[in-house]
Order: sequence, then C-alpha cells, then structure tokens
Amino acid sequence: MYTNNIVGKNNSEISSLFVQNVEYRMPGDPAVRTLAGPAHWELFKYITAISGMSLSNQQKTLIVESVKLKKLRKRQYFLQEGDICKYIGFIIKGSTRMFSINERGQESIVAFGLENTWITDQASFNQNECSGYHIEVMEDTELLILNRSQIELLIASVPAFAQMFSEYQKQQLIYNQKRINAALSMTAEERYYDLLKNQPQYSMRFSQNMLACYLGVKPETLSRIRKHHI
Amino acid sequence: MYTNNIVGKNNSEISSLFVQNVEYRMPGDPAVRTLAGPAHWELFKYITAISGMSLSNQQKTLIVESVKLKKLRKRQYFLQEGDICKYIGFIIKGSTRMFSINERGQESIVAFGLENTWITDQASFNQNECSGYHIEVMEDTELLILNRSQIELLIASVPAFAQMFSEYQKQQLIYNQKRINAALSMTAEERYYDLLKNQPQYSMRFSQNMLACYLGVKPETLSRIRKHHI
Repeated sequence: MYTNNIVGKNNSEISSLFVQNVEYRMPGDPAVRTLAGPAHWELFKYITAISGMSLSNQQKTLIVESVKLKKLRKRQYFLQEGDICKYIGFIIKGSTRMFSINERGQESIVAFGLENTWITDQASFNQNECSGYHIEVMEDTELLILNRSQIELLIASVPAFAQMFSEYQKQQLIYNQKRINAALSMTAEERYYDLLKNQPQYSMRFSQNMLACYLGVKPETLSRIRKHHI
Repeated sequence: MYTNNIVGKNNSEISSLFVQNVEYRMPGDPAVRTLAGPAHWELFKYITAISGMSLSNQQKTLIVESVKLKKLRKRQYFLQEGDICKYIGFIIKGSTRMFSINERGQESIVAFGLENTWITDQASFNQNECSGYHIEVMEDTELLILNRSQIELLIASVPAFAQMFSEYQKQQLIYNQKRINAALSMTAEERYYDLLKNQPQYSMRFSQNMLACYLGVKPETLSRIRKHHI
C-alpha cells in the first residue's frame, strides 16, 4: 500500500486494529490516569497497534512525561524556513503541509500530515541544520511533540516505542521510494489517479491548489484532469 | 550533506574516520580471522565508523555467519521486476542502479548504489510483495547480502549493527526528502548542478544517459546543459 501515514490506517482503523489484535487496558490504570489526557491515549493506541506490543504503566508514564501537547491554529507554523527543526510532532487532530518555496516563488509540497502521522524536517531535526522548509498547519491542529533527546530516551527505554518508530521509518522509506518513482516515471494524470487510489483522504482534506503543489503539476493541468475524470 | 551513501563517505573517508575516532583491532582476532574475509572487514569498518561503537569477537562472528558474499558481473540483476526482493545488499565493490520501466517503455532510475551503500526494494523486502523495480549491476560487483530474518537477528543481537542500521534509515529519509523536493521544485539545470555538487561521484561512475534517467530529464536536455556548463 502506498501511503505516508503509517501502514495507511486512519484513527478508526487503528482503533479497530488495536481492539482486534492487542490486549490493552483502557484508561483505568491509576498511576497513569492522573497524568495522561486523551491525546496521550491516542498515542498509546497507535504505539500498541503498530508495534504489536503492550505498554506497562511505567512506560506509559515515561511517555507522558516525555511528550508535550501543542495546539496550533489554522495557518500557524510548526516550522519556518531558516529555523532549526527542534521537534518531531505526532498529529492527534488536524492537518499540515510541509513545503519549500523556490527562487521563482513557486511552492512545492513535499509532505502532507494527517492524524496518526509524524511530521518533521528529517535533515534539520537529525543534523541540527537550518531548514529549507515550512511546515504549516492547515486546520486547527493538536500535536504531541518531542525533541531529539526525548525521542532517543523513548527508543532506548520503551521497546514498543522503538519498534513503532522503526516501523514508521521503514514505511516512510517505502512511501518515499514510490513517490520518487512517481515523480520520475508517471504523467501528471497517472500521478493524480495514483493519489486518488492510494491517498483518497488527501483529495478530501486538501484544496485543488495544494494537491497540484504536491503532485508537481500546474493547477490548470490538474483542473483539466479533474474535469476529464468527472 | 545531500547523499544516499551513508553520511556521504566513500571507502577511504570511512577508513580515515574510523582510524581517527574509533579504537579498533585490525584482523588479528584468532576467533574471527579464520571466518572473515576482506569483504567482512569492510563491513566491520563501516559498522564501527557509522555507529561509533566497537564490535566484540563474538559479534563479528555472528555477523560473518549471518551475511553471504555474492558476486555479480556487469549487467547481471540483483532483482528483477515481478520478483520478491528477498535480500538487502551492502556493496563492497562495484555499482548498481535501481530502475522502473513505465508503460511507455521509459526507464526511471530511483537509486544508484556505490561502495558502502545498502541496496534493496524497501517495499518488496519489508512487505514481501512483488517488486516493480529492477536492480542491475553496472560494473562487476561484490555484495554482502542478508535476508529479513538475518537483518532482524543482527539488529536484535548487535547494538552497533542496530545503531548503524537506524542511522542508515535516517540518512535515507533525509536524502529522499531532498530528492522529492528537487523533483518538485528545481529546473533540470538546477537538479544537474545539485547532483554535481552533492554527488560528484555519480557523474564519474555513471553514463550521461543514466544520469538523465536519474534526474528525470531528457538525455538531449542534459547534453545541452552539460555543453553550456563546459
């Protein structure tokens, strides 16, 4: 499957996966209950579903203490070009786009973010360099954010988190490989149909102009393709 | 730095890095000496340099027992479209290209491989699905290959290997993010100059036609750009 939110599952699919496959106690553990909010429980569900491993109360507490809830309003920025990307964010609710602006003022969208997606500028986050990208929030958005040492701590201390994060990186590699191939080998029309098939939620959540910037086609070309498609 | 062989270092750079930064015993450990050949020592050097961690004799032995040396002659295939990619390969010597052929018969190169690069079809290798790619050997090539359970065993048993592999995945994510952005936002000319700057070895090791397939430009366009460049 061709998607960039992990294993291509939305919130409800992840919930049902976790109900089916994973033994998991709902928010009733006294030690965690006082600390964790609904956003944390979403992350626990996600980690459990992706890793196939359970989380102890101690591990849940460590996760809660390591992440920070951040709320951004539509049009606010998670990252701006020229800044160092200090955080990786896990989207609980909302959507984002990561884009660059070239010398001719054209915008290119390198990634969209939806619920259950991690967002960051990999180069800037991992290598402490100034980012060439903006990450803008497209709707009112809630994120759990972590800096590098917090990610490293959780990877080292919570096997389920390490497993989930490795799986996320693997899925990203697969997704990017396909996206590079699409950019090189497909016509604008093929890329659009591919998106409709594999990322139907994108065409529901993002404007036609945004989709064009993501596909690397001119808005008028996409408009023509869509008319033809209807 | 913008490169797809890890941290952008060639063999001699890795050797010097490892000599400077890492305490490392040269091939004299009796337990390993009998098993390991020059290819294994290259991999040990690479793991040590990238992870910054040393390998015990026991770990070296486990690595040697897990990998298999494979030699392919120029124009042979590591993977053919329609097959499941059972292996990931670490290039000791030689070069590869991973490409797709679209319905119009056009080739698109999604990745080149040189010494100290891992090659595989991520989707096929990780998800056991038929590959849409060919990986062809461009020169006589020596690889160390591992299947999925061998990779998983080494990640679970050898911390330096796990650290190296995580770093490799991170570098790939960074590289792919930049490549997607280049495909979307740069002109053919800008992409070529970017390649010359960041992957100078590609223009020395691969033909002009190959470079055009990698950059997603027509060979005659690349030819025109190169004339202008000289």
